[in-house]
Amino acid sequence: MDAVTCRIFRNATLATLETTGDAAAQAYGLIPQAALVIEDGRIAWRGPEDQLPAPYATLPSEDLNGALVTPAPIDCHTHVVFGGDRAMEFEMRLNGASYEEVARAGGGIVSTVRATRAASEETLLTQALKRVDALIAEGVTTLEIKSGYGLDVETELRMLRVARKIGERRPIRVRTTFLGAHAVPAEFKGEDDRYLDEICLPTLELAHDEGLVDAVDGFCEGIAFSPAQMARVFDKAAALGLPVKLHAEQLSNLGGAALAASYKALSADHLEYLDEAGVTAMAEAGTVAVLLPGAFYTLRETVLPPMDLLRRHGVAIALATDCNPGTSPLTSLLLTMNMACTLFRMTPEEALAGVTREAARALGLDDCGTLCLGARADLAIWDVAHPAELSYRIGFNPLTSRIFGGS
Amino acid sequence: MDAVTCRIFRNATLATLETTGDAAAQAYGLIPQAALVIEDGRIAWRGPEDQLPAPYATLPSEDLNGALVTPAPIDCHTHVVFGGDRAMEFEMRLNGASYEEVARAGGGIVSTVRATRAASEETLLTQALKRVDALIAEGVTTLEIKSGYGLDVETELRMLRVARKIGERRPIRVRTTFLGAHAVPAEFKGEDDRYLDEICLPTLELAHDEGLVDAVDGFCEGIAFSPAQMARVFDKAAALGLPVKLHAEQLSNLGGAALAASYKALSADHLEYLDEAGVTAMAEAGTVAVLLPGAFYTLRETVLPPMDLLRRHGVAIALATDCNPGTSPLTSLLLTMNMACTLFRMTPEEALAGVTREAARALGLDDCGTLCLGARADLAIWDVAHPAELSYRIGFNPLTSRIFGGS
Ligand SMILES: [Zn+2]
Ligand SMILES: [Zn+2]
Repeated sequence: MDAVTCRIFRNATLATLETTGDAAAQAYGLIPQAALVIEDGRIAWRGPEDQLPAPYATLPSEDLNGALVTPAPIDCHTHVVFGGDRAMEFEMRLNGASYEEVARAGGGIVSTVRATRAASEETLLTQALKRVDALIAEGVTTLEIKSGYGLDVETELRMLRVARKIGERRPIRVRTTFLGAHAVPAEFKGEDDRYLDEICLPTLELAHDEGLVDAVDGFCEGIAFSPAQMARVFDKAAALGLPVKLHAEQLSNLGGAALAASYKALSADHLEYLDEAGVTAMAEAGTVAVLLPGAFYTLRETVLPPMDLLRRHGVAIALATDCNPGTSPLTSLLLTMNMACTLFRMTPEEALAGVTREAARALGLDDCGTLCLGARADLAIWDVAHPAELSYRIGFNPLTSRIFGGS
Repeated sequence: MDAVTCRIFRNATLATLETTGDAAAQAYGLIPQAALVIEDGRIAWRGPEDQLPAPYATLPSEDLNGALVTPAPIDCHTHVVFGGDRAMEFEMRLNGASYEEVARAGGGIVSTVRATRAASEETLLTQALKRVDALIAEGVTTLEIKSGYGLDVETELRMLRVARKIGERRPIRVRTTFLGAHAVPAEFKGEDDRYLDEICLPTLELAHDEGLVDAVDGFCEGIAFSPAQMARVFDKAAALGLPVKLHAEQLSNLGGAALAASYKALSADHLEYLDEAGVTAMAEAGTVAVLLPGAFYTLRETVLPPMDLLRRHGVAIALATDCNPGTSPLTSLLLTMNMACTLFRMTPEEALAGVTREAARALGLDDCGTLCLGARADLAIWDVAHPAELSYRIGFNPLTSRIFGGS
């Protein structure tokens, strides 16, 4: 036991989020009056303080005065790397402009693709870091980042390189997702399959060769790609040994979640229009439901994700910001938790699990998201008395400390 | 001209929010490539930089690199002073508890009244300052604070004293509002008028004598006080020479806004159920409509305030957080702006005016809320290119500097 690499917290309230063991009997896996020991960046011990084993009990420790310790939040679905913004489009719409007028003025995803293609790696990085810093300020230590605003070989690769660089420039773990099948770019209008063959699939292969891809995603929707087209992308991912996920059932029900489940997808995301067949397919495959209340809120959607079905079939539910310039310019996971409770009627416990344990699962990570023994010491320390306060408050950040890999 | 008390900004983008003069011709009263001069805590000059008068042009200045300068945000309707919180109630409800079960467990406004009565002045101050600091972090320089969780003589006075102390402990201007007519306390159940006679009205007089009251407010609703009862409170306010405002038409239409207008109220607040008669009464009296999207959002209200009627009749529209533990535990005016745009379809320009110029008007202040000559130099400097971004982004704070009375 080396005091230098060992860090001991006492007088803490732990929300372990564990599903097995003693703590799991309590809501949030709560352990009051607890101690937690970090060694070599991992959780070496945690439990009731009066049970702290002798070797640790004599070492120097930090008194947390009862503060709440949770696994650090994980944002498992973001598009934080993009060029430009869409504030002018937001304003035009609110001033009564039609979708056609916005499109004629150069708005919509087309404008983000144009701005992203035009932006240098350094510009994309600088802009993205502002958003990432807002997430870090709320304790986020793991962040998924998608490509999908390039839609050409060079820009898709550039977005993924920027995503990787974010993990070098900041103390945060980045998981990259290739989203070449996000939209059909203007130059391939009406030729979706040719876009897949000539750009999307070859770029996926190039990005994978460069070590830039942790997972493969797509947008399965009337305005994007069909299930048959997504199957081609997923076949390619399978051939490369990459896990998949899918933007599914956001605006209509095309059976995307079931398709994703048939590929043992890590997650299916959005899901407002998901039906029971999709839910059972996800449950059987262990596919996580990633809900994105920021997009629901921004689009003023009125159809709720099928919460009761998801619960009844035991589908794990994660939450994420979906940070993107068009439908969710949101950089707060705490607000995402409140929106999930307020808009989707999730419980505060489900919301906290959604941005920790289940978010880790949605990224295929089994070393973070709970305070179990051996987990990475990615922790958030909060100035609140009870974990429900994290979901209850709106536009308030009670983070007092963030620990990434033990430091 | 004294360099010591004079502060000059160049290379700024000014959103003056003025309604007269050159700048008023532009949306937001925008002046690009501008300079702004502060002398003795007031705006001594602002306009196109190339017109900066000779005496200022030679003095040292600060280059803002094009950053946006707006009047500092004003939160014109809050209940930031209270004891306890309602996170447990929030959690119980989301776990399926009925209103009766919550009430039996001690929830509802009753629990806040109990916790507020039990809290010392120092405890109330410490808790409130956390919320105030969150508002200050977004640039807020003027803050309205209501009583109304005491509902007895001593606690109502204590809340108002705490409100005044906030203005001493922080660089912020506090406007206090007496809200003894917020609810009928348990010990007067069914005896609303006796509560008014024995507690509310005498306490108002005591608080006024102590210099603790800038305005008088009430909650006019089936679950609170009737228009006839509110009229009695307003008569007392008039006798004391105090301006009034009213929580009106939030859950039903009792004609509260028209009543308030008949007393030349500064504002009527909430207003989801306001009808055209109320709108015209407000327009004639110059009563400001204070909209509170945080409460609308938290309560999942579906009836929108009558935006088109308010616009058509030229009623000024302000926005505020309504920060309170039950129906709007919200401490972000930026998020309030986004909610106003997203939920109420206000334009970003209306939203910015709502938290600056019109919020000042709702408090009866004519020396802040715009960048007009002679106004208090209460300014916010933002790292955004265009004011629409302030409303467009969600859960993001681009404030780089806050100036209160020139410093
Ligand atoms: Zn997305
Ligand atoms: Zn209120």
